[in-house]
Amino acid sequence: MTQGLINVKLKEHRLLDKVSVTAIAPGDQVELGSCFAEFFRVNHSIPDAIGIVLHTPIGAVVHTGDYKFDYTPVDGKPADLGLLGKIGNDGVLVMMGDSTRVESPGYTPSERVINDSFDKIFANAPGRILIATFASLISRVQQVLDTAQRYERFVAFMGRSMQNNVQMAIELGYLNMPKGMLIRPEDINKFNPDQVVIVCTGSQGEPTSALTRIANQDHRQIRIQPGDTVILSATPVPGNEKMVHRTINSLFRQGAEVFYQGISNVHVSGHGAQEELKLMLSLLRPRFFVPVHGEYRQLILHAKLAFSLGIPEENIVVAEDGDIIDVTEDSIKLKEHVSSGNVFVDGLSVGDVGQIVLRDRKVLSQDGILMVVLTIDKETGQPLAGPDIVSRGFVYMRDSEELLENSRQRVLDAFNGFEKHSHSGSDWSFVKDKIKHTLSEFLYEQTRRRPMILPMVMEV
Amino acid sequence: MTQGLINVKLKEHRLLDKVSVTAIAPGDQVELGSCFAEFFRVNHSIPDAIGIVLHTPIGAVVHTGDYKFDYTPVDGKPADLGLLGKIGNDGVLVMMGDSTRVESPGYTPSERVINDSFDKIFANAPGRILIATFASLISRVQQVLDTAQRYERFVAFMGRSMQNNVQMAIELGYLNMPKGMLIRPEDINKFNPDQVVIVCTGSQGEPTSALTRIANQDHRQIRIQPGDTVILSATPVPGNEKMVHRTINSLFRQGAEVFYQGISNVHVSGHGAQEELKLMLSLLRPRFFVPVHGEYRQLILHAKLAFSLGIPEENIVVAEDGDIIDVTEDSIKLKEHVSSGNVFVDGLSVGDVGQIVLRDRKVLSQDGILMVVLTIDKETGQPLAGPDIVSRGFVYMRDSEELLENSRQRVLDAFNGFEKHSHSGSDWSFVKDKIKHTLSEFLYEQTRRRPMILPMVMEV
Repeated sequence: MTQGLINVKLKEHRLLDKVSVTAIAPGDQVELGSCFAEFFRVNHSIPDAIGIVLHTPIGAVVHTGDYKFDYTPVDGKPADLGLLGKIGNDGVLVMMGDSTRVESPGYTPSERVINDSFDKIFANAPGRILIATFASLISRVQQVLDTAQRYERFVAFMGRSMQNNVQMAIELGYLNMPKGMLIRPEDINKFNPDQVVIVCTGSQGEPTSALTRIANQDHRQIRIQPGDTVILSATPVPGNEKMVHRTINSLFRQGAEVFYQGISNVHVSGHGAQEELKLMLSLLRPRFFVPVHGEYRQLILHAKLAFSLGIPEENIVVAEDGDIIDVTEDSIKLKEHVSSGNVFVDGLSVGDVGQIVLRDRKVLSQDGILMVVLTIDKETGQPLAGPDIVSRGFVYMRDSEELLENSRQRVLDAFNGFEKHSHSGSDWSFVKDKIKHTLSEFLYEQTRRRPMILPMVMEV
Repeated sequence: MTQGLINVKLKEHRLLDKVSVTAIAPGDQVELGSCFAEFFRVNHSIPDAIGIVLHTPIGAVVHTGDYKFDYTPVDGKPADLGLLGKIGNDGVLVMMGDSTRVESPGYTPSERVINDSFDKIFANAPGRILIATFASLISRVQQVLDTAQRYERFVAFMGRSMQNNVQMAIELGYLNMPKGMLIRPEDINKFNPDQVVIVCTGSQGEPTSALTRIANQDHRQIRIQPGDTVILSATPVPGNEKMVHRTINSLFRQGAEVFYQGISNVHVSGHGAQEELKLMLSLLRPRFFVPVHGEYRQLILHAKLAFSLGIPEENIVVAEDGDIIDVTEDSIKLKEHVSSGNVFVDGLSVGDVGQIVLRDRKVLSQDGILMVVLTIDKETGQPLAGPDIVSRGFVYMRDSEELLENSRQRVLDAFNGFEKHSHSGSDWSFVKDKIKHTLSEFLYEQTRRRPMILPMVMEV
């Protein structure tokens, strides 16, 4: 499944023939120099999720990956508790554990609970049903297909990543879709509304996704019509709340019935809650523990959880991106820090948009910019033309003629104060500073805004 | 209390003597032309919250205000169920009801539950305790004071709005603070850490608030030290999640113990959940219902809730800002829409920052700006100086000399192509357009960015 998803992405970026991908299965062992890696099945919101054991000369390092324990997963393959127990019995030097849901007490419910919610919604939906979820959440798509079959509905897929992933999952046997159930998006209107289910992208309110386009009445094929039911089968990723809520509001506004996490059990997390984190820690019983995959507060809470299970404080390290952790057979500590983080890609260039350019963009976005150009006679130092003033993002120029005229006058006054000194050389930076300072003060006094001021002096 | 809060704000803006404020009490009646208003006590996160009944010639219109039903409120004054029942019995034509928490089933817990959480935290805090909450949440402050007294701690207040509101609330008798408990922020270090509680602003991660400054190590008086306990006694208002999480992460990073909604019961909402909304609807039994105070999805859900209690669909109107609702004794409908919404205040001016200025700021913030200035001989049409190019927020100029030199050359080439026509008149707009177009294409080709391009031609 992982290979399939990677291939879909490689194909999208036309890199498929440039990369070789080797698939491994749970239980496989792969040699890596003096180490070897072993893999154990866990549950997550995607089939075939695994954790990794890296057997090093000084001991086993376990990375859980994203995980939860689902005893009744949709794909019928629960986490391999037996193998996890064996790994723990054999001894684990370091465990790195997923911290995403450490703030939630109890257990994350099984994916199965969603079947009941889907059943209730399908049974009462008078028209079309649109379901948005993550394109990688293949097991959720399977649940939709199973429910659609029970309610005799046809299914269409919308959104490129959804279509690609579903096609791949069907080909690889990860999705079980009855013959004749699939319809093309352009054929939806050939069916009665109560015969149709549409599975689409857009559960995060992403601007160009299918559901967001539909909500914005901007989709090529679909408009919301009375009787439509929309299910957002996902939780907003932190930071996306506003966009998701905007989508939900728009859908309601157009008359759809909308079900979403918060009013209905239409999603469960792919990450384990506190009791599952305790179970993993108790199965593996690591000597050293490093919480991973979470914001800093979650790492800290996971560290406290591990401490509460008996791992000594000095055996737990909370690290951030770029930290190097030094582990020996009997010690663990933070060693040094290498630079890491985001590299900004802007247009064709990678990483060249630095602090100064970003700071300028920020200033520009707040109060705009105002340019002053003055042409000077090189010989006499007299102004020959201008000052001309142009501004963008500061004030609407047509409504501000008086302000701009007064600004011009201020610039001339400032310039004339300098005439004697300035015509001797061609370095006008002192004059430019003076113009900038004068204008900045004047404009702040008049408008309480601080546009970026860019004086230019041209010599003729 | 409302009067006190308003006066604090008026004082801040030096308007206190320009505005007259009349206080009313629950049960008061105020004549308003052919109508009169009556007021009933509700519970909210602030003392003295009330709802309004407007008795009109055709019937009573009830606006609940923000409300919940708290049978054991901190200030000892529960919502006036008796009066609400009487208002309902007398007949309500229109009810406008708070929809904020319609997505939450059950009841909003009483403010009292927070006492237990505070007790647990105070009992275990080895050092200072910092509590951030809304500056208007006076009852929460009272709970902190009560707990502080039990654990023999002194209390300091930080953040201007918190200090102002607390002072007002003490003066008006809404806060009960034992003598000698109050200490000044600058005296905090004179006490042992375990003798100190700091109540401050910043529960929403607001950039200039006390807690945010402390988290950013930017506060004049306070730095986080080992043993500090921080309580965020508030829920992030939608949209503030990221800022609040950043604050929490920073506090953890500096070694504080942090308690916040989600891992601890340190806040309850001021708005009623579904069962309370049902109770209010059942007490008032309005003929017509208008859900208010919520995003569109919440208004719709509140409308459905009212429908489920037996209010006919045609008696419910979901309106948005600016909608005019037409009510008669036996009908309610949306009539027309007046323009409404935000008026932007920027510096000294109100409402003059229009679409064009905002659009420019957006463009500027994305790819920056590039100015080209060319000085021309009026007589011959020959370029005398320039083109000079300056950019901001586009590329870092010192690293892009080649790009800028090539741009200059392009401008000259474009200009020379026009020489013949242009020296006849003084309208350079055609030339400017050509320069703009040429440069825009060249820069997009070279960088895949589209800075705003501003050509200026000066005649000498």
